[in-house]
Amino acid sequence: MNAPDKFAQLLALTRESFPASTKNYLTGSRPDVRVPVRDIALTNGEQVSVYDTSGPYTDPAAEIDVRKGLPSVRGAWIEARGDTERYEGRKQQALDDGSKSEDAARLALLRTEAAALQRKPVRARSGANVTQMHYAKRGIVTPEMEYVALRENGRREWMAQYAQDEARERRLAGNPMGASIPKIITPEFVRDEVARGRAIIPANINHPEVEPMAIGRNFKVKINANIGNSAVTSSIEEEVEKLVWAIRWGADNVMDLSTGKNIHTTRDWIIRNSPVPIGTVPIYQALEKVGGIAEDLTWEIFRDTLVEQAEQGVDYFTIHAGVRLAYIHLTAARRTGIVSRGGSIMAKWCMAHHRESFLYEHFEDICDIMKQYDVSFSLGDGLRPGCASDANDEAQFAELRTLGELTQVAWKHDVQTMIEGPGHVPMHMIQANMTEQLKTCHEAPFYTLGPLTIDIAPGYDHIASAIGAAMIGWMGTAMLCYVTPKEHLGLPDRDDVKQGIIAYKIAAHAADVAKGHPGARARDDALSQARFDFRWQDQFNLGLDPETAQQYHDETLPKDSAKVAHFCSMCGPKFCSMKITQEVREFAAQGMQEKAVEFRGTGGELYVPIQPIA
Amino acid sequence: MNAPDKFAQLLALTRESFPASTKNYLTGSRPDVRVPVRDIALTNGEQVSVYDTSGPYTDPAAEIDVRKGLPSVRGAWIEARGDTERYEGRKQQALDDGSKSEDAARLALLRTEAAALQRKPVRARSGANVTQMHYAKRGIVTPEMEYVALRENGRREWMAQYAQDEARERRLAGNPMGASIPKIITPEFVRDEVARGRAIIPANINHPEVEPMAIGRNFKVKINANIGNSAVTSSIEEEVEKLVWAIRWGADNVMDLSTGKNIHTTRDWIIRNSPVPIGTVPIYQALEKVGGIAEDLTWEIFRDTLVEQAEQGVDYFTIHAGVRLAYIHLTAARRTGIVSRGGSIMAKWCMAHHRESFLYEHFEDICDIMKQYDVSFSLGDGLRPGCASDANDEAQFAELRTLGELTQVAWKHDVQTMIEGPGHVPMHMIQANMTEQLKTCHEAPFYTLGPLTIDIAPGYDHIASAIGAAMIGWMGTAMLCYVTPKEHLGLPDRDDVKQGIIAYKIAAHAADVAKGHPGARARDDALSQARFDFRWQDQFNLGLDPETAQQYHDETLPKDSAKVAHFCSMCGPKFCSMKITQEVREFAAQGMQEKAVEFRGTGGELYVPIQPIA
Repeated sequence: MNAPDKFAQLLALTRESFPASTKNYLTGSRPDVRVPVRDIALTNGEQVSVYDTSGPYTDPAAEIDVRKGLPSVRGAWIEARGDTERYEGRKQQALDDGSKSEDAARLALLRTEAAALQRKPVRARSGANVTQMHYAKRGIVTPEMEYVALRENGRREWMAQYAQDEARERRLAGNPMGASIPKIITPEFVRDEVARGRAIIPANINHPEVEPMAIGRNFKVKINANIGNSAVTSSIEEEVEKLVWAIRWGADNVMDLSTGKNIHTTRDWIIRNSPVPIGTVPIYQALEKVGGIAEDLTWEIFRDTLVEQAEQGVDYFTIHAGVRLAYIHLTAARRTGIVSRGGSIMAKWCMAHHRESFLYEHFEDICDIMKQYDVSFSLGDGLRPGCASDANDEAQFAELRTLGELTQVAWKHDVQTMIEGPGHVPMHMIQANMTEQLKTCHEAPFYTLGPLTIDIAPGYDHIASAIGAAMIGWMGTAMLCYVTPKEHLGLPDRDDVKQGIIAYKIAAHAADVAKGHPGARARDDALSQARFDFRWQDQFNLGLDPETAQQYHDETLPKDSAKVAHFCSMCGPKFCSMKITQEVREFAAQGMQEKAVEFRGTGGELYVPIQPIA
Repeated sequence: MNAPDKFAQLLALTRESFPASTKNYLTGSRPDVRVPVRDIALTNGEQVSVYDTSGPYTDPAAEIDVRKGLPSVRGAWIEARGDTERYEGRKQQALDDGSKSEDAARLALLRTEAAALQRKPVRARSGANVTQMHYAKRGIVTPEMEYVALRENGRREWMAQYAQDEARERRLAGNPMGASIPKIITPEFVRDEVARGRAIIPANINHPEVEPMAIGRNFKVKINANIGNSAVTSSIEEEVEKLVWAIRWGADNVMDLSTGKNIHTTRDWIIRNSPVPIGTVPIYQALEKVGGIAEDLTWEIFRDTLVEQAEQGVDYFTIHAGVRLAYIHLTAARRTGIVSRGGSIMAKWCMAHHRESFLYEHFEDICDIMKQYDVSFSLGDGLRPGCASDANDEAQFAELRTLGELTQVAWKHDVQTMIEGPGHVPMHMIQANMTEQLKTCHEAPFYTLGPLTIDIAPGYDHIASAIGAAMIGWMGTAMLCYVTPKEHLGLPDRDDVKQGIIAYKIAAHAADVAKGHPGARARDDALSQARFDFRWQDQFNLGLDPETAQQYHDETLPKDSAKVAHFCSMCGPKFCSMKITQEVREFAAQGMQEKAVEFRGTGGELYVPIQPIA
């Protein structure tokens, strides 16, 4: 297929609204703080409002042109702070798009297509620090913080109706496992969480298109989806639609893990079209620049890559600065050694030079770059376990302790920081992981991949890991990196991305409910109520994937009349237990309780004498 | 489609072996104790042996004729005990196949096809008690118990090679959460667990085809799959292949929840062709016999149905005897009332007559039937919550306490008993559920449906519930009833059954690993080792679904050479982290450790001075 055809395909972005859904905005203290929500209209007149990650793509009023990029959300806020300057920026290098671009004509075409997405970058004025943490520490509530507060609260009014039974609320009260989630998130609370490093708002000043969001244990648990081309397959066009697809299903963050051709150009397309924070692993691109030879990496090439990506607007960098020379031997006795790509690249470099990691040695230099653009750290777990039997070992925890030290260095520079975590951990070892991270890393947000709880489920690792993700999310992890069914096997396609995201929305929501996040349970209640009332269409529409739910229902009972039928295919009309419950209520209203109490008094005369075995 | 065509379809049972797998048998102290295992041949010469629920269907040497049923496994053992008698049995009634058989000719045809499956039933001789619990309490180790012991252990030799690193074993030691799983399961241990009611071996003396298995918290966590026709769809032919399909993927037990036409005949087909225990909910059939009018149910009709099903060989009965009149009003304030079919039928009956449940009143009469055939109780949770917000409420726990009382009544009769549990429970309330059950029900095995941790995932409830199932399995639940993607929406088809089972194999295995079941982790280790060694074919074959794993791999890298390639599609040849780990090992062997130690001594001179924030 030639390139123009591919573009034509790209322009068919998935833009349909979800059924019965309207994109609305909550407005803050100023008209340009407009936080998206998805309002779902139920057949009983109720409106249910849910957190919306899908960006302008699901707003029918938004004009989208991927060649121009999304409108700016934060541009005026950044400018108004008066601490940045627009400048020429680094000159694009031939190597920026990798050393393997066989097809120069194709790359030229891609670059031309992306030309309108080029922006002159901004950076902090000399001596300034433009991180949200820096502002927070100085007591400033930024528009980004207010945005986050509104977003975390959502429409509390409709949620409240599901929390009026006090006895039930007490019975269902969450177990926050040490988190302190206030009833209402105020902008000041967001500020305080960011100031003390317990939350981050990944928002590069060169990514003004981003709709701000927070990652922290006192906020909703977030999920990240990875996309990216690769040496083997994929193309830029696919990547942008993957982003739109991923945020449609609920990805709060997206990491661009491209390692193949056209990395720089791919990134322009993704960031300019992304309403969610974009993370990268800069060492992947740096390695491309040195032809894939880890030992040829240098601080200068890495540094240049950081600046390149910071200017493009990457919101967080995974930096494997905890893979220290002294830890590498700790992995030698492992069953699966080092499985992190970044970790293994750095291990190879350290071994080849028999030197301390240049990431570790130049960590403060890195901080200096991060704070000029407000790029957040995602301190990579290069030594994470690659299988259950390597879980929680000394290599993993030695690195974690170093990440804790580096967190404090980053915080000294007011650079926002989160910590990456495993990987593969059996259920009974998850709590220890979380406890160790909280302690060692001073409550900096934890961002875990899974963890997978077992190793025998290739093809189903989204499920094997959703178990671990839900648990560690409950225990305090702030963001869960998804795992798709293709994990360990191949590159996820469109449906795999969706499957992975939905498994992780389930895990994150289960965690929110368990922690007792205020309002989290309301959507469950609304759906359960619809189920009980036989409002089938509402039941579908309130779910994470309305279309699939309806399709499954219609396979058995396709008729439209079944959508309002007071029974379902599981039991048929006669057996319907929910119908019977309605009779119970009538019965109870007729004085069932009095009769039952009276009955209890006669319990001793029942046929079955209860005689416990001695 | 006419009936003969359907039969032709039925005879195409799924009988292929899993890739590289051989069905073998472990022989006990007598030649007729032959326990199936599936041995997987790896490309490195290793043999990995796994628990096998698939019965003779995956044994190429077995001749299968569904019209004749499976060969007897236990017939000689039962006969040798000399405490049973063969008798004429109850006379089949017109109503046994329900009141809705519009097509008499078709039913006649089905019955003719099933004629060769008719057996004269056996029962306990007058005054005898033929339950495994009865034998166990008298100190007898039955062949069934020996069979179970061999089955639980499997081939320990190959597992041992993965447990030789003592430090690793200490680090990974399970947290049994109160379970006491011995290193080796002896027949005497099985006996003792059955005697004290902490495990059951569901094995009706009229189901000699069953391959004995145990349900108890000190054994591997088991899973149950539900099949059944329904008033709306399905046919007998589909049900039998569903059974074969379910056990192929690992269902340890199958419940036949048929509620529609031809219930009796369907059950003959299923039981005679089932190597796994079959459970039913007899009240479903009893209700069919009274035309679906709950208030028309009587003890006599119910009793007759129990005998009918006991004679056919049903291994366990779900009996909702805990739905007492006095508890019904407790459900009136719930969001979704009563969602158990059996529970709602009994609630309706109690309300209509304003009388105590006849199941509760006749509980000892029921015990008298159970012990004549060794049918186990699965005490139904008719008042289980139907949504998260009804979880752990007074209705649920009042019933649970009654189930605990009834357990002790059953045990007085030496009737094996397990307890059914929810349903819908947020993560943070699962532990309380388990604790309450263990305490209230005296450690009788818990058998839970899920639980679902959230309610917003219609279409994905197998995942929402696998999270809860894994956790409650770890905490002590002995058997997990699967949930398919169609839960709440429609009847599961072939693929849904498989998806549900695999999600639950994952949950059960995650629980075994977390509990520290000896040998559970070996398969994970073997698979992880294969992954690390780039033995792709072994990685596929050791997984729960080899075909899907291979198919996912081949979508990206279809070439045969990629099956031995030392890289995969995720990173491509240059980046492969596992390849780099092999270099780490060589490096470590060259004295990395010494150099690292020496390096540590100079750590103070590193570029980055670590200065924790005050």
